[in-house]
Amino acid sequence: MLAVVGDSAAGKTTITAGLVEALGPDRCVSISADDYHRFDRAERRGKPFTPLHPDCNYIDILEQHLQLLATGHPILKPVYDHSIGRRVRPELVEPKDFIIVHGLLPLHSKLARACFDVTVFLDPPEEIRRAWKINRDTVTRGYTTDQVMAEIVASEAESAKYVRPQRAHADIVVRFAPIATRNDPPDTPLSAELILRPTIRQPDLTEVLQPDVTRTIHLRLARDTDGRPVDSVHIHGYTTAEENAAAEKMLWEALGDPRTAAPKCLGLISPNQRSTPLAITQIILLHHLLHGAR
Amino acid sequence: MLAVVGDSAAGKTTITAGLVEALGPDRCVSISADDYHRFDRAERRGKPFTPLHPDCNYIDILEQHLQLLATGHPILKPVYDHSIGRRVRPELVEPKDFIIVHGLLPLHSKLARACFDVTVFLDPPEEIRRAWKINRDTVTRGYTTDQVMAEIVASEAESAKYVRPQRAHADIVVRFAPIATRNDPPDTPLSAELILRPTIRQPDLTEVLQPDVTRTIHLRLARDTDGRPVDSVHIHGYTTAEENAAAEKMLWEALGDPRTAAPKCLGLISPNQRSTPLAITQIILLHHLLHGAR
Repeated sequence: MLAVVGDSAAGKTTITAGLVEALGPDRCVSISADDYHRFDRAERRGKPFTPLHPDCNYIDILEQHLQLLATGHPILKPVYDHSIGRRVRPELVEPKDFIIVHGLLPLHSKLARACFDVTVFLDPPEEIRRAWKINRDTVTRGYTTDQVMAEIVASEAESAKYVRPQRAHADIVVRFAPIATRNDPPDTPLSAELILRPTIRQPDLTEVLQPDVTRTIHLRLARDTDGRPVDSVHIHGYTTAEENAAAEKMLWEALGDPRTAAPKCLGLISPNQRSTPLAITQIILLHHLLHGAR
Repeated sequence: MLAVVGDSAAGKTTITAGLVEALGPDRCVSISADDYHRFDRAERRGKPFTPLHPDCNYIDILEQHLQLLATGHPILKPVYDHSIGRRVRPELVEPKDFIIVHGLLPLHSKLARACFDVTVFLDPPEEIRRAWKINRDTVTRGYTTDQVMAEIVASEAESAKYVRPQRAHADIVVRFAPIATRNDPPDTPLSAELILRPTIRQPDLTEVLQPDVTRTIHLRLARDTDGRPVDSVHIHGYTTAEENAAAEKMLWEALGDPRTAAPKCLGLISPNQRSTPLAITQIILLHHLLHGAR
């Protein structure tokens, strides 16, 4: 079981979709923790909190369902329809080989955290997350830009109090961002930094990522915010398509399955847009899922 | 936890409502197993079975939820709205001192049966149940009489195969019916026969129901269909209002709480219609709930 956690529009659905497609729907099921929202959008208007607050969600039922899935039992999962902002009828979810849970609060409680084999926190800079959120909520969820901006302001305190502290409980922290020290043109694809914490057995990348073997990916020994040693993987957005393809192939052969080509769904941001940093991130997560399953 | 089981329109909701009101909503919650229907009414039209078939219900989820409630955990219960024949959004149910589960199939599986402290099967004669069903489904569920008759015919085989066999697993079998050996006028209230099986500790009624103490209730030693000895309690519908009131008072003082009057909600069939056989049945069930809870 993998948790993909982060603030609203941090990229959870995008990273999850590629993993589910790569593993196949027969073996993998994904669950949105947003389905555990306790109130409809209209009901929330009178409430003193946003969906980022634990009290705005059936946290105890989410814990219960995670435990049931972790022990091989089916659940009748609630469903929150984002397109209309309403809770609708529940659906049966059978446990599968791989279960990916993405949402705002899956790592909020100790009991929920104990259910996961691997945990990921998505940590983009706020200005990037906000741009992503405005785009998504106006295009697919029927909000105006002003409404989204108001929601961002309204949820800031709860994000700081409940969502961001979960970063401390992640085995892997992923940050998509431009590289501050370079002066790349605005349409340069985002780079990514992955912090691989020693809270789980991380893949040994020292062999495959030897210095100067590629310009696209670098491995560095670094210190976490608490001083503990971690691997820091930098994946650059500015390198050429050829360099990117070679780096993805190299990582897939080392961490994925060298007998097959990497699934085409990896790295897809939209049907027409690819990201090598996203693909590399997904290859490392797939390695954890496949390795943990062996 | 009490199970109230029987075919469609056998009287489950009526007997349950009086118990819930007597115990109070702070201490008692009732759950309809119909909420675990797997399909909407419209979806069922193309299916080769009726709601009486286990495959037409989330039986494994019902088992899971019964186990969770029995061990003191909340559930997110599905909801089936009979007035529109559709599954709607689920609702949180917290465990309480007394949990009453009524439905078509709560005693179908061994795992579900193991969750209950007391189990009741409602077993009215078919012609009475059909009259009740036609009345209810045309008045509150939007069916025509022809549709109800067609449904009764369509569900007969599944009732025989799945619903009626649960009678064997009940601690108490309740049969509301006119007395065949008498020639009472048609508007005479129905009598009731209660079979009290020794599968649980039944109340000792030999003291309170000594011969000739009342015309309303009789206790007889009888043999069950499998030959085992049981108590058979006959409650007559034809006795006078004074005899009925005295019998109810006597039973309540023996089995309920002699410090208080019997709750007014016991015996209510509708806001304007009372039944002493129903009230006596509910007093015996309340005795089990209160006695088991002590």
